[in-house]
Amino acid sequence: MFDFQYFTPTKVVFGKNTESRVAELIREFGGTKILIHYGGGSVVRSGLLKRVTDSLDAAGLAYVTLGGAVPNPHLGLVYEGIELCKKEGVDFLLGVGGGSAIDSAKAIGYGVANEGDVWDFYDYKRKATGCLPIGVILTIAATGSEMSDSSVITKEEGLVKRGYSSDYCRPKFAIMNPELTMTLPDYQTACGCTDIMMHTMERYFTNGGNMDITDALAEGLLRTVKDNALILCKDPKNYDARAEVMWAGSLAHNGLTGCGNDGGDWMTHKLEHELGGLYDVAHGAGLAAIWGSWARYVYKDCLPRFKKFAINVMGVEDSGSDEEIALRGIEAMEDFYRSINMPTNLRELGVEATDEDLVLMAQKCAIGVGGEMGSAKVLNEEAMLAIYRASM
Amino acid sequence: MFDFQYFTPTKVVFGKNTESRVAELIREFGGTKILIHYGGGSVVRSGLLKRVTDSLDAAGLAYVTLGGAVPNPHLGLVYEGIELCKKEGVDFLLGVGGGSAIDSAKAIGYGVANEGDVWDFYDYKRKATGCLPIGVILTIAATGSEMSDSSVITKEEGLVKRGYSSDYCRPKFAIMNPELTMTLPDYQTACGCTDIMMHTMERYFTNGGNMDITDALAEGLLRTVKDNALILCKDPKNYDARAEVMWAGSLAHNGLTGCGNDGGDWMTHKLEHELGGLYDVAHGAGLAAIWGSWARYVYKDCLPRFKKFAINVMGVEDSGSDEEIALRGIEAMEDFYRSINMPTNLRELGVEATDEDLVLMAQKCAIGVGGEMGSAKVLNEEAMLAIYRASM
Repeated sequence: MFDFQYFTPTKVVFGKNTESRVAELIREFGGTKILIHYGGGSVVRSGLLKRVTDSLDAAGLAYVTLGGAVPNPHLGLVYEGIELCKKEGVDFLLGVGGGSAIDSAKAIGYGVANEGDVWDFYDYKRKATGCLPIGVILTIAATGSEMSDSSVITKEEGLVKRGYSSDYCRPKFAIMNPELTMTLPDYQTACGCTDIMMHTMERYFTNGGNMDITDALAEGLLRTVKDNALILCKDPKNYDARAEVMWAGSLAHNGLTGCGNDGGDWMTHKLEHELGGLYDVAHGAGLAAIWGSWARYVYKDCLPRFKKFAINVMGVEDSGSDEEIALRGIEAMEDFYRSINMPTNLRELGVEATDEDLVLMAQKCAIGVGGEMGSAKVLNEEAMLAIYRASM
Repeated sequence: MFDFQYFTPTKVVFGKNTESRVAELIREFGGTKILIHYGGGSVVRSGLLKRVTDSLDAAGLAYVTLGGAVPNPHLGLVYEGIELCKKEGVDFLLGVGGGSAIDSAKAIGYGVANEGDVWDFYDYKRKATGCLPIGVILTIAATGSEMSDSSVITKEEGLVKRGYSSDYCRPKFAIMNPELTMTLPDYQTACGCTDIMMHTMERYFTNGGNMDITDALAEGLLRTVKDNALILCKDPKNYDARAEVMWAGSLAHNGLTGCGNDGGDWMTHKLEHELGGLYDVAHGAGLAAIWGSWARYVYKDCLPRFKKFAINVMGVEDSGSDEEIALRGIEAMEDFYRSINMPTNLRELGVEATDEDLVLMAQKCAIGVGGEMGSAKVLNEEAMLAIYRASM
């Protein structure tokens, strides 16, 4: 068991019509001039943006808006947001949307609160010393960015996708109304469920310092998302299932399911980041396409965890050798992915990569993690390439 | 499923020797003049108080000290602390100890930050509008006060024990070093485990709005505390088991295990509060002594939850009628209490109450809850008396 720090200051306001409280919450956390940052047109088309601006108008709160945050949000828009905030004297950021809008808002917040080029933080060159306060209205359950300390930004030049984490960017409040997620395409819902589970699975498959209670919480969370993802495949408008998944998304990535361990493995995410950088695939689908190959490559080096996962999460029978149980758990997870129409390899993902592409991704991934990384099993560039090849 | 708010801003710093970071954390949250508030002599005898004051001296932080917080902490000492803070210009409270010291510090914090008599808040007469910032060094895993919004104070006149809850009193930081709990008498360790489990059981046994994920987290937490309480009976110096219980204590009462439900039942706590007021018994032992009688009185009105508890927490076989399964779960819980040397009735608790005493407690309890209360089953004064009588 390792020492840990747990810090989740975000005030979560969860339930129907909670977006009506946005102005009150911005005031509570000191905002007077707001940048409303959002992604595509759905926030506009659904009327949500208008409801938000009407609320701010009614409360006498000044604001500017900036849309256009895309999946794998771009550095260029972040620069634009920083300029806009400085020009307009913005003192509070409101991200409206999913992880893209929130991550982009976090990067803007770093850029306003710190001198110099904000990319330096994502490029591991220096550390931020602050961030503009951020509030969130969540419309996609997936990245957990609404409570997490992390954001992921893609630099257009060379398609470099990098994450940066610090407590400064944890949102002050998160408004979570499960109804706002109901218009999502089924594919995006399944991608979200996959991402949510992976945030906890990355923390779960480790060789260091696990705690009983952390495991119990992680396993309970994984079972819940699995069950409710299946419900949402058949009944996408099911409010309770939407709510289960939405709340799980926050808990899966706010640190709770990693307390006491070594920080987790995170190689599936790193391998997917290169995919997302090169092919602009949906993050959750990319994770599903990689995970099985990763799991088969590493499971023998992390056998107790894979066995426990098989039994306690996937409901595999506790019979046969540990390796057999672990493999049945991996198969059951892949079956689950298929049952929610997620890919289990790159072809199913729609990526027709050449071997040169795979070599390039492995090179970039190895550079990105500083040579080698992993807790279930430490992976170097050769291992990364082997996993990419197995995932074809 | 009900709407909910979740707000746990406390920065948890967990692990060995973490108390060495106390001065750094006080500075981070703006403290310049500190009241160190603690309970009995163990904090002095163990050398912890000296280590804390040495740290503050080294950091150039001014402080005053106030000891004497007793179990079921008294209003008189709270008044004394408020006076001391005002006289000395204290701007930060440091509670060192268990729930008594922390709850007492919270009440002092309310008293300094609000005009008028602090007892008004505990007497439901008005609401606080602030609280002095509080940090905690936890030495007993039990009440969860280190992350919770609640404090319980006893007014000496008439032995009136009342709780008050608001987000204002949630500690800014909580230093949790499991080693600091190792010198606790075994009885106190078992009382702590009982209290921790009860904080989640109170939220679990409801008839309103339960969420799958909340249930899964609650059940995982309960199983973890149960297993580790048994380990600590045989091996009280087991660091990992101490850590599991300590972290569970915070999560059991910070709101996590009640998200989405109606707030919980809380009648076992209310019934015990009257016991604690009259007899000054250990809170955890009082809860154990009451719970079985409460459970048998209410389980038919909350059968799905008692069945689920029996199977998922106590490991009871899923066979027979729902009532049989529920009753076997209650019996298994009472067996567990016995196995950690907790009482399962008032006689085992050492309370030789007359029937007039029971009548008086039921009267006071009914007044305290405003007539009737409960979610598993709504209890009036008559029902409370029946449970007290059954617990003899």
